[in-house]
Amino acid sequence: MSVYTSVSRKQLEAFLGLYNEGRLINFCGIKAGIENSNFFVTTERGEFVLTLFEKLAAYELPFFLNLMAHLAERGIPSAHPIADRKFDFLQCLNGKPAALVRRLTGESPISPDLRHCRAMGHALARLHLAARDYSAHRHNDRGYAWWLAVREILHSRLSESDARLLDAELQFQSQDRFTGLPRGVVHADLFRDNAMFVGDELTGIIDFYYACNDILLYDLAITVNDWCGNPDGSLDTTKAGILLNAYSDERRLEPIEYRAWPVMMRAAALRFWLSRLYDKHFPRAGQITHIKDPDEFKIILIHRIKYAPVV
Amino acid sequence: MSVYTSVSRKQLEAFLGLYNEGRLINFCGIKAGIENSNFFVTTERGEFVLTLFEKLAAYELPFFLNLMAHLAERGIPSAHPIADRKFDFLQCLNGKPAALVRRLTGESPISPDLRHCRAMGHALARLHLAARDYSAHRHNDRGYAWWLAVREILHSRLSESDARLLDAELQFQSQDRFTGLPRGVVHADLFRDNAMFVGDELTGIIDFYYACNDILLYDLAITVNDWCGNPDGSLDTTKAGILLNAYSDERRLEPIEYRAWPVMMRAAALRFWLSRLYDKHFPRAGQITHIKDPDEFKIILIHRIKYAPVV
Repeated sequence: MSVYTSVSRKQLEAFLGLYNEGRLINFCGIKAGIENSNFFVTTERGEFVLTLFEKLAAYELPFFLNLMAHLAERGIPSAHPIADRKFDFLQCLNGKPAALVRRLTGESPISPDLRHCRAMGHALARLHLAARDYSAHRHNDRGYAWWLAVREILHSRLSESDARLLDAELQFQSQDRFTGLPRGVVHADLFRDNAMFVGDELTGIIDFYYACNDILLYDLAITVNDWCGNPDGSLDTTKAGILLNAYSDERRLEPIEYRAWPVMMRAAALRFWLSRLYDKHFPRAGQITHIKDPDEFKIILIHRIKYAPVV
Repeated sequence: MSVYTSVSRKQLEAFLGLYNEGRLINFCGIKAGIENSNFFVTTERGEFVLTLFEKLAAYELPFFLNLMAHLAERGIPSAHPIADRKFDFLQCLNGKPAALVRRLTGESPISPDLRHCRAMGHALARLHLAARDYSAHRHNDRGYAWWLAVREILHSRLSESDARLLDAELQFQSQDRFTGLPRGVVHADLFRDNAMFVGDELTGIIDFYYACNDILLYDLAITVNDWCGNPDGSLDTTKAGILLNAYSDERRLEPIEYRAWPVMMRAAALRFWLSRLYDKHFPRAGQITHIKDPDEFKIILIHRIKYAPVV
């Protein structure tokens, strides 16, 4: 259950009074998602999603909301935030920062096929290109320094074999081999549940709340690790090839990116292994029933190391 | 009321079982403080404060807890975190990151006199010196980029005169005049309620959860703005002089620091004016009864501008 903060009809009516979207018809809480409280909202003028941010502070939100607007206005299928009458995307509702976005149709593909992978490759490259003239900047707070911080607080909590694998990979990734990799705004969490499809048409990319400035290829590796994996954690090289080619049709990959690719897939697997270990050992209140198995990404990491043992 | 997360006797007994501090005798919630849930805890071996972190994530805490241990071990009167049997400072309790620190005696001086100011000057300089060999690094997330982010989300919410003053000061502070100012680990929030005294002896500096790497003089300016102000917001120059001299007795201020001093006091006033405006317009749930008047720091800022209209 992901509605941590409730909203009354009266509160929502007052909130909608700030916007030009007509009067409230009805609304209900959304169960999916674990970071925020979300509601479907229907007004006289359309269908929306209301998000109350449970963890992000108000001052962090302009980067994300402005980015979503920037991308939607450039034709990237993504949730468009709604400005109120004073041109603000952000309000405060029941003690939480709150934003209204246009509701997208579609469903997340659980078992993506080649057409889904191709669509994601095209879309991610277009997203990277469309964000090139986005002027705000956000540091990746799940980057290498964070990996080390998590390693430190896990120090007495890991099995010996996990600690050994983790330390070896942190050591491997610390080598700064690819300083010339193209950088830009990345989504950084483009898993299947953050994309919606109707049939094989991508209708929306959602959940931009890890977006930041980082290596573009790293974003591609996060996406491929989730969309192009076999159930045993190994890589479906057909799907991966199609996604990469589709990406490169839009933004030609550079030779250095091909060389860095195996290392990036390891980095992307490591990042999610770490965050899952972290969530397991330091579960936030209300999150306990949603803990995902860290071993899933440990196994992906092991497969990616096999795939690319040396560089 | 600041206990957001409750702790049962049974939970606390299990938690204390991880430490070498003997069995629980009794405990009670602490009302002061608005960021975290705090408890006084008495065991067979001593008196402690248990903190459940409501906002900070576990991965952010090693910087602060290791710093507190570092300073306490170097004789700075400050709360010493207690390591458990596996040498961890950090646990998870009731879904929140949790730490145990040794309880300090004393009270915060509401109306500090010259002796308090002198003690604070000495202590802050010693803190800066003792932290010189602290190896971890934390960016100031309440620095200039944050000021701009807050300005942006407040854009339609300020009076015209407040907006004008704020923009003028942001513009003034954007000029990078003092690139050579000494930097290091700063407390960044050394207000009266974060220091405890018994008589005129400083017994403890607490609440290191804004500590970061920044300009040392900025820390001094934050401290002077709070400890050496008159009730009308103007500077008590006698107190300020004594605090500065005491500081300089321990760490000799450089000529560039004397030149930067009036600008730093303005920057320090601006930072807290902004955070109070932010808290007023985006109050977090549970915090609403604790909102402090932003105008207090607007007036301090106006006085510091008068004190130093040009540089």
